[in-house]
Amino acid sequence: MRGSPAIDRVIASLKRLPGIGDKSASRLAFFLLGAPDSLVADLADALSRLKQETVMCADCFNLGDRTPCPICSDDRRDDSLLCVVEEPADLSAIEKSGSFKGRYHVLGGTLSPIDGMGPGELRIGELERRVRSGGIREVILATNPNAEGDATAHYIGDRLRPAGVLVSRIAYGMPLGGDLEYADHVTVGRSLENRRKFSD
Amino acid sequence: MRGSPAIDRVIASLKRLPGIGDKSASRLAFFLLGAPDSLVADLADALSRLKQETVMCADCFNLGDRTPCPICSDDRRDDSLLCVVEEPADLSAIEKSGSFKGRYHVLGGTLSPIDGMGPGELRIGELERRVRSGGIREVILATNPNAEGDATAHYIGDRLRPAGVLVSRIAYGMPLGGDLEYADHVTVGRSLENRRKFSD
Repeated sequence: MRGSPAIDRVIASLKRLPGIGDKSASRLAFFLLGAPDSLVADLADALSRLKQETVMCADCFNLGDRTPCPICSDDRRDDSLLCVVEEPADLSAIEKSGSFKGRYHVLGGTLSPIDGMGPGELRIGELERRVRSGGIREVILATNPNAEGDATAHYIGDRLRPAGVLVSRIAYGMPLGGDLEYADHVTVGRSLENRRKFSD
Repeated sequence: MRGSPAIDRVIASLKRLPGIGDKSASRLAFFLLGAPDSLVADLADALSRLKQETVMCADCFNLGDRTPCPICSDDRRDDSLLCVVEEPADLSAIEKSGSFKGRYHVLGGTLSPIDGMGPGELRIGELERRVRSGGIREVILATNPNAEGDATAHYIGDRLRPAGVLVSRIAYGMPLGGDLEYADHVTVGRSLENRRKFSD
Protein backbone atom coordinates (compact mmCIF):
# COMPACT_ATOMS: atom_id res chain seq x y z
CA MET A 1 0.00 0.00 0.00
CA ARG A 2 2.94 2.34 0.53
CA GLY A 3 5.28 1.93 -2.40
CA SER A 4 4.51 0.67 -5.85
CA PRO A 5 4.73 -3.01 -6.78
CA ALA A 6 7.45 -2.13 -9.30
CA ILE A 7 9.60 -0.45 -6.63
CA ASP A 8 8.93 -3.23 -4.13
CA ARG A 9 9.99 -5.83 -6.70
CA VAL A 10 13.31 -4.08 -7.34
CA ILE A 11 13.90 -3.81 -3.58
CA ALA A 12 13.08 -7.50 -3.10
CA SER A 13 15.39 -8.53 -5.96
CA LEU A 14 18.26 -6.35 -4.72
CA LYS A 15 17.91 -7.75 -1.20
CA ARG A 16 18.77 -11.20 -2.52
CA LEU A 17 22.28 -9.98 -3.37
CA PRO A 18 25.06 -10.45 -0.82
CA GLY A 19 25.80 -7.43 1.38
CA ILE A 20 22.61 -5.60 0.40
CA GLY A 21 20.07 -5.29 3.19
CA ASP A 22 16.76 -3.51 3.59
CA LYS A 23 18.06 0.03 3.63
CA SER A 24 20.67 -0.36 0.90
CA ALA A 25 18.10 -2.01 -1.37
CA SER A 26 15.59 0.76 -0.78
CA ARG A 27 18.27 3.41 -1.26
CA LEU A 28 19.41 1.82 -4.54
CA ALA A 29 15.83 1.51 -5.80
CA PHE A 30 15.09 5.18 -5.17
CA PHE A 31 18.43 6.11 -6.74
CA LEU A 32 17.50 4.10 -9.84
CA LEU A 33 14.09 5.80 -9.97
CA GLY A 34 15.82 9.16 -10.11
CA ALA A 35 18.66 8.03 -12.38
CA PRO A 36 18.74 8.50 -16.17
CA ASP A 37 16.76 5.88 -18.08
CA SER A 38 19.92 4.80 -19.88
CA LEU A 39 21.67 3.87 -16.63
CA VAL A 40 18.82 1.61 -15.54
CA ALA A 41 18.39 0.14 -19.03
CA ASP A 42 22.14 -0.55 -19.29
CA LEU A 43 22.15 -2.36 -15.98
CA ALA A 44 19.05 -4.43 -16.83
CA ASP A 45 20.50 -5.29 -20.23
CA ALA A 46 23.94 -6.17 -18.85
CA LEU A 47 22.29 -8.49 -16.32
CA SER A 48 20.11 -10.16 -18.97
CA ARG A 49 23.14 -10.91 -21.11
CA LEU A 50 25.50 -11.85 -18.30
CA LYS A 51 24.75 -15.56 -18.28
CA GLN A 52 24.00 -16.12 -21.93
CA GLU A 53 27.24 -14.46 -23.06
CA THR A 54 29.45 -16.16 -20.49
CA VAL A 55 31.03 -19.54 -21.17
CA MET A 56 33.26 -21.76 -19.09
CA CYS A 57 36.77 -22.45 -20.34
CA ALA A 58 37.08 -26.18 -21.04
CA ASP A 59 40.70 -26.19 -19.84
CA CYS A 60 40.82 -24.09 -16.65
CA PHE A 61 37.05 -23.70 -15.93
CA ASN A 62 37.30 -19.94 -15.66
CA LEU A 63 34.32 -17.94 -16.90
CA GLY A 64 34.75 -15.72 -19.94
CA ASP A 65 33.53 -15.04 -23.42
CA ARG A 66 35.24 -17.98 -25.13
CA THR A 67 36.90 -21.34 -24.62
CA PRO A 68 39.80 -21.81 -24.35
CA CYS A 69 39.95 -18.57 -22.42
CA PRO A 70 42.49 -15.81 -23.19
CA ILE A 71 44.72 -17.00 -20.33
CA CYS A 72 44.76 -20.64 -21.51
CA SER A 73 45.44 -19.60 -25.09
CA ASP A 74 48.17 -17.09 -24.21
CA ASP A 75 51.49 -18.52 -25.47
CA ARG A 76 53.55 -16.27 -23.24
CA ARG A 77 52.33 -17.83 -20.02
CA ASP A 78 54.25 -20.54 -18.20
CA ASP A 79 52.72 -23.98 -18.77
CA SER A 80 54.74 -25.51 -15.94
CA LEU A 81 53.01 -23.52 -13.17
CA LEU A 82 49.40 -24.29 -12.28
CA CYS A 83 47.54 -22.16 -9.75
CA VAL A 84 44.47 -23.79 -8.19
CA VAL A 85 41.73 -21.39 -7.04
CA GLU A 86 38.24 -21.84 -5.68
CA GLU A 87 36.29 -19.48 -7.92
CA PRO A 88 36.68 -17.22 -10.98
CA ALA A 89 36.68 -14.21 -8.63
CA ASP A 90 39.83 -15.54 -6.96
CA LEU A 91 41.51 -15.98 -10.34
CA SER A 92 40.56 -12.41 -11.15
CA ALA A 93 42.09 -11.18 -7.85
CA ILE A 94 45.37 -12.99 -8.58
CA GLU A 95 45.48 -11.65 -12.15
CA LYS A 96 45.04 -8.13 -10.80
CA SER A 97 48.05 -8.64 -8.53
CA GLY A 98 50.11 -9.16 -11.69
CA SER A 99 52.43 -11.56 -9.85
CA PHE A 100 51.52 -14.83 -11.54
CA LYS A 101 52.23 -15.73 -15.14
CA GLY A 102 51.34 -19.43 -15.18
CA ARG A 103 48.05 -21.23 -15.83
CA TYR A 104 44.98 -21.63 -13.61
CA HIS A 105 42.59 -24.33 -12.52
CA VAL A 106 39.23 -23.25 -11.06
CA LEU A 107 37.84 -25.82 -8.63
CA GLY A 108 34.33 -24.44 -8.43
CA GLY A 109 34.22 -24.22 -4.63
CA THR A 110 35.67 -25.93 -1.57
CA LEU A 111 35.08 -29.19 0.18
CA SER A 112 32.19 -28.67 2.57
CA PRO A 113 30.45 -31.91 3.52
CA ILE A 114 27.77 -29.96 5.44
CA ASP A 115 26.74 -28.26 2.17
CA GLY A 116 26.97 -31.49 0.20
CA MET A 117 30.25 -30.43 -1.47
CA GLY A 118 32.42 -33.54 -1.73
CA PRO A 119 35.44 -34.12 -3.99
CA GLY A 120 33.08 -35.18 -6.79
CA GLU A 121 31.44 -31.75 -6.81
CA LEU A 122 34.77 -30.00 -7.37
CA ARG A 123 36.97 -30.23 -10.46
CA ILE A 124 39.62 -32.32 -8.70
CA GLY A 125 39.48 -35.23 -11.13
CA GLU A 126 40.08 -32.75 -13.96
CA LEU A 127 43.00 -31.29 -12.01
CA GLU A 128 44.55 -34.75 -11.59
CA ARG A 129 44.21 -35.40 -15.31
CA ARG A 130 45.87 -32.06 -16.16
CA VAL A 131 48.76 -32.85 -13.81
CA ARG A 132 49.16 -36.44 -15.05
CA SER A 133 49.17 -35.33 -18.69
CA GLY A 134 52.61 -33.84 -17.94
CA GLY A 135 54.47 -30.59 -18.34
CA ILE A 136 53.49 -29.22 -14.93
CA ARG A 137 56.33 -28.55 -12.52
CA GLU A 138 54.46 -26.97 -9.61
CA VAL A 139 50.87 -26.79 -8.44
CA ILE A 140 50.17 -23.74 -6.25
CA LEU A 141 47.16 -24.23 -3.99
CA ALA A 142 45.57 -20.77 -3.76
CA THR A 143 42.36 -21.76 -2.03
CA ASN A 144 41.29 -19.23 0.61
CA PRO A 145 43.09 -19.14 3.98
CA ASN A 146 40.13 -20.41 6.00
CA ALA A 147 38.97 -23.79 7.33
CA GLU A 148 37.32 -24.93 4.08
CA GLY A 149 40.14 -23.64 1.89
CA ASP A 150 42.75 -25.34 4.09
CA ALA A 151 40.86 -28.64 4.14
CA THR A 152 40.50 -28.52 0.37
CA ALA A 153 44.21 -27.72 -0.07
CA HIS A 154 45.16 -30.66 2.19
CA TYR A 155 42.86 -33.01 0.32
CA ILE A 156 44.24 -31.96 -3.08
CA GLY A 157 47.80 -32.21 -1.78
CA ASP A 158 47.14 -35.84 -0.83
CA ARG A 159 45.47 -36.62 -4.15
CA LEU A 160 48.37 -35.18 -6.15
CA ARG A 161 51.15 -36.85 -4.15
CA PRO A 162 51.30 -39.99 -6.39
CA ALA A 163 51.81 -37.74 -9.42
CA GLY A 164 55.14 -36.62 -7.95
CA VAL A 165 54.60 -32.95 -8.73
CA LEU A 166 55.71 -30.12 -6.39
CA VAL A 167 52.66 -28.83 -4.50
CA SER A 168 52.86 -25.45 -2.72
CA ARG A 169 50.44 -23.32 -0.71
CA ILE A 170 50.16 -19.51 -0.80
CA ALA A 171 51.83 -17.84 2.20
CA TYR A 172 49.98 -16.88 5.36
CA GLY A 173 50.97 -13.68 7.12
CA MET A 174 50.15 -10.11 7.84
CA PRO A 175 48.40 -8.27 5.03
CA LEU A 176 50.44 -5.39 3.63
CA GLY A 177 49.51 -2.13 5.32
CA GLY A 178 48.01 -4.14 8.17
CA ASP A 179 48.38 -3.42 11.85
CA LEU A 180 49.57 -6.02 14.37
CA GLU A 181 47.41 -4.41 17.04
CA TYR A 182 44.23 -5.07 15.08
CA ALA A 183 45.10 -8.33 13.36
CA ASP A 184 43.47 -11.51 14.64
CA HIS A 185 45.59 -13.79 16.83
CA VAL A 186 45.68 -16.62 14.33
CA THR A 187 47.08 -14.39 11.60
CA VAL A 188 49.69 -12.93 13.94
CA GLY A 189 50.63 -16.46 15.03
CA ARG A 190 50.95 -17.72 11.47
CA SER A 191 52.91 -14.64 10.51
CA LEU A 192 55.43 -15.45 13.26
CA GLU A 193 55.62 -19.17 12.45
CA ASN A 194 56.20 -18.45 8.77
CA ARG A 195 58.86 -15.79 9.36
CA ARG A 196 61.69 -15.66 6.82
CA LYS A 197 65.31 -14.64 7.07
CA PHE A 198 65.47 -10.92 6.60
CA SER A 199 67.22 -8.96 3.84
CA ASP A 200 68.64 -11.53 1.54
CA MET B 1 41.55 -9.61 -21.87
CA ARG B 2 41.05 -11.04 -18.40
CA GLY B 3 37.30 -11.24 -17.83
CA SER B 4 34.55 -11.45 -20.37
CA PRO B 5 32.92 -8.37 -21.89
CA ALA B 6 29.59 -9.50 -20.38
CA ILE B 7 31.07 -9.63 -16.86
CA ASP B 8 32.92 -6.34 -17.35
CA ARG B 9 29.69 -4.67 -18.48
CA VAL B 10 27.82 -5.81 -15.37
CA ILE B 11 30.69 -4.60 -13.18
CA ALA B 12 30.76 -1.23 -14.97
CA SER B 13 26.98 -0.83 -14.62
CA LEU B 14 26.98 -1.77 -10.93
CA LYS B 15 29.80 0.68 -10.21
CA ARG B 16 27.54 3.53 -11.28
CA LEU B 17 25.28 2.82 -8.29
CA PRO B 18 25.87 4.75 -5.06
CA GLY B 19 27.92 2.94 -2.43
CA ILE B 20 29.13 0.27 -4.86
CA GLY B 21 32.83 0.44 -5.66
CA ASP B 22 35.23 -1.73 -7.61
CA LYS B 23 35.32 -4.65 -5.23
CA SER B 24 31.60 -4.74 -4.40
CA ALA B 25 30.73 -4.58 -8.10
CA SER B 26 33.08 -7.41 -8.94
CA ARG B 27 31.84 -9.45 -5.98
CA LEU B 28 28.21 -8.93 -7.01
CA ALA B 29 28.95 -9.82 -10.63
CA PHE B 30 30.61 -13.10 -9.67
CA PHE B 31 27.77 -13.82 -7.24
CA LEU B 32 25.27 -13.28 -10.05
CA LEU B 33 27.26 -15.60 -12.34
CA GLY B 34 26.94 -18.36 -9.79
CA ALA B 35 23.36 -17.55 -8.78
CA PRO B 36 20.27 -19.32 -10.16
CA ASP B 37 19.17 -18.01 -13.55
CA SER B 38 15.82 -16.99 -12.05
CA LEU B 39 17.44 -14.63 -9.54
CA VAL B 40 19.34 -12.78 -12.26
CA ALA B 41 16.36 -12.77 -14.61
CA ASP B 42 14.07 -11.45 -11.83
CA LEU B 43 16.45 -8.62 -11.08
CA ALA B 44 16.91 -7.67 -14.74
CA ASP B 45 13.15 -7.81 -15.28
CA ALA B 46 12.35 -5.79 -12.15
CA LEU B 47 14.81 -3.12 -13.28
CA SER B 48 13.39 -3.00 -16.81
CA ARG B 49 9.91 -2.47 -15.45
CA LEU B 50 10.83 -0.10 -12.64
CA LYS B 51 10.47 3.12 -14.58
CA GLN B 52 7.72 2.14 -16.97
CA GLU B 53 5.44 0.91 -14.18
CA THR B 54 6.06 3.85 -11.87
CA VAL B 55 3.96 7.00 -12.11
CA MET B 56 4.03 10.24 -10.17
CA CYS B 57 0.98 11.14 -8.09
CA ALA B 58 -0.54 14.32 -9.52
CA ASP B 59 -1.48 15.51 -6.02
CA CYS B 60 1.51 14.80 -3.78
CA PHE B 61 4.19 13.94 -6.40
CA ASN B 62 5.07 10.67 -4.71
CA LEU B 63 6.07 7.77 -6.97
CA GLY B 64 3.83 4.73 -7.10
CA ASP B 65 1.73 2.57 -9.36
CA ARG B 66 -1.17 4.97 -9.80
CA THR B 67 -2.35 8.57 -9.46
CA PRO B 68 -3.78 9.71 -7.14
CA CYS B 69 -1.57 7.50 -5.00
CA PRO B 70 -2.98 5.25 -2.24
CA ILE B 71 -2.08 7.84 0.41
CA CYS B 72 -3.83 10.72 -1.39
CA SER B 73 -6.92 8.59 -2.03
CA ASP B 74 -7.12 7.21 1.51
CA ASP B 75 -10.23 8.73 3.17
CA ARG B 76 -9.02 7.93 6.66
CA ARG B 77 -6.06 10.29 6.47
CA ASP B 78 -6.16 13.81 7.85
CA ASP B 79 -6.57 16.41 5.07
CA SER B 80 -5.65 19.26 7.39
CA LEU B 81 -2.03 18.10 7.92
CA LEU B 82 0.45 18.38 5.08
CA CYS B 83 3.95 16.98 5.45
CA VAL B 84 6.54 18.39 3.02
CA VAL B 85 9.43 16.07 2.15
CA GLU B 86 12.34 16.24 -0.26
CA GLU B 87 12.05 12.87 -1.97
CA PRO B 88 9.81 9.78 -2.19
CA ALA B 89 12.37 7.89 -0.08
CA ASP B 90 11.76 10.37 2.78
CA LEU B 91 8.01 9.89 2.50
CA SER B 92 8.59 6.16 2.68
CA ALA B 93 10.71 6.60 5.84
CA ILE B 94 7.98 8.65 7.55
CA GLU B 95 5.29 6.15 6.55
CA LYS B 96 7.36 3.37 8.08
CA SER B 97 7.50 5.29 11.39
CA GLY B 98 3.69 5.04 11.49
CA SER B 99 3.45 8.37 13.32
CA PHE B 100 1.92 10.51 10.63
CA LYS B 101 -1.60 10.17 9.28
CA GLY B 102 -1.93 13.32 7.19
CA ARG B 103 -1.06 14.01 3.56
CA TYR B 104 2.29 14.55 1.86
CA HIS B 105 3.91 16.90 -0.61
CA VAL B 106 7.11 15.76 -2.31
CA LEU B 107 9.31 18.70 -3.32
CA GLY B 108 11.65 16.80 -5.60
CA GLY B 109 14.85 17.97 -3.91
CA THR B 110 16.21 20.92 -1.98
CA LEU B 111 17.31 24.41 -2.86
CA SER B 112 20.91 24.20 -3.97
CA PRO B 113 22.00 27.11 -6.15
CA ILE B 114 25.36 25.47 -6.78
CA ASP B 115 23.60 22.54 -8.46
CA GLY B 116 21.20 24.82 -10.29
CA MET B 117 18.31 23.91 -7.98
CA GLY B 118 16.28 27.08 -7.45
CA PRO B 119 12.69 27.42 -6.20
CA GLY B 120 11.45 26.89 -9.77
CA GLU B 121 13.02 23.42 -9.89
CA LEU B 122 11.13 22.30 -6.77
CA ARG B 123 7.36 21.85 -6.43
CA ILE B 124 6.97 24.92 -4.25
CA GLY B 125 4.41 26.67 -6.49
CA GLU B 126 2.30 23.50 -6.38
CA LEU B 127 2.65 23.48 -2.58
CA GLU B 128 1.44 27.10 -2.38
CA ARG B 129 -1.56 26.25 -4.56
CA ARG B 130 -2.46 23.28 -2.36
CA VAL B 131 -2.22 25.43 0.76
CA ARG B 132 -4.22 28.30 -0.76
CA SER B 133 -6.95 25.98 -1.97
CA GLY B 134 -7.86 25.63 1.72
CA GLY B 135 -8.55 22.89 4.23
CA ILE B 136 -4.93 22.69 5.41
CA ARG B 137 -4.36 23.61 9.06
CA GLU B 138 -0.68 22.84 9.37
CA VAL B 139 2.26 22.36 7.02
CA ILE B 140 5.04 20.24 8.52
CA LEU B 141 8.42 20.87 6.92
CA ALA B 142 10.17 17.51 6.97
CA THR B 143 13.11 18.37 4.76
CA ASN B 144 16.35 16.79 5.97
CA PRO B 145 18.14 18.29 8.99
CA ASN B 146 21.13 19.54 7.04
CA ALA B 147 22.12 22.86 5.45
CA GLU B 148 20.14 22.41 2.23
CA GLY B 149 17.09 21.01 4.02
CA ASP B 150 17.10 23.86 6.54
CA ALA B 151 17.52 26.50 3.84
CA THR B 152 14.66 24.96 1.89
CA ALA B 153 12.47 24.88 5.02
CA HIS B 154 13.18 28.55 5.72
CA TYR B 155 12.43 29.52 2.15
CA ILE B 156 9.14 27.61 2.15
CA GLY B 157 8.23 29.06 5.56
CA ASP B 158 8.63 32.55 4.11
CA ARG B 159 6.66 31.70 0.98
CA LEU B 160 3.75 30.26 2.98
CA ARG B 161 3.54 33.10 5.55
CA PRO B 162 1.00 35.13 3.52
CA ALA B 163 -1.30 32.10 3.40
CA GLY B 164 -1.69 32.32 7.18
CA VAL B 165 -1.25 28.60 7.73
CA LEU B 166 0.63 27.14 10.71
CA VAL B 167 4.08 26.03 9.52
CA SER B 168 6.10 23.65 11.68
CA ARG B 169 9.47 21.98 11.36
CA ILE B 170 10.29 18.42 12.43
CA ALA B 171 12.22 18.42 15.69
CA TYR B 172 15.92 18.00 16.01
CA GLY B 173 15.43 14.61 17.48
CA MET B 174 17.23 13.70 14.28
CA PRO B 175 21.00 13.62 14.56
CA LEU B 176 22.46 16.68 12.81
CA GLY B 177 23.84 15.92 9.40
CA GLY B 178 21.66 12.82 9.28
CA ASP B 179 19.38 11.65 6.54
CA LEU B 180 15.68 10.79 6.97
CA GLU B 181 16.00 7.91 4.60
CA TYR B 182 18.45 6.13 6.91
CA ALA B 183 17.15 7.07 10.34
CA ASP B 184 15.49 4.44 12.50
CA HIS B 185 11.68 4.52 12.76
CA VAL B 186 11.56 5.64 16.39
CA THR B 187 13.80 8.63 15.75
CA VAL B 188 11.73 9.62 12.74
CA GLY B 189 8.57 9.26 14.82
CA ARG B 190 9.93 11.33 17.76
CA SER B 191 11.07 13.97 15.37
CA LEU B 192 7.53 14.30 14.01
CA GLU B 193 5.92 14.38 17.46
CA ASN B 194 8.27 17.10 18.70
CA ARG B 195 7.78 19.41 15.74
CA ARG B 196 7.86 23.14 16.56
CA LYS B 197 6.20 26.22 15.13
CA PHE B 198 8.44 27.45 12.34
CA SER B 199 10.18 30.83 11.89
CA ASP B 200 9.82 32.61 15.19
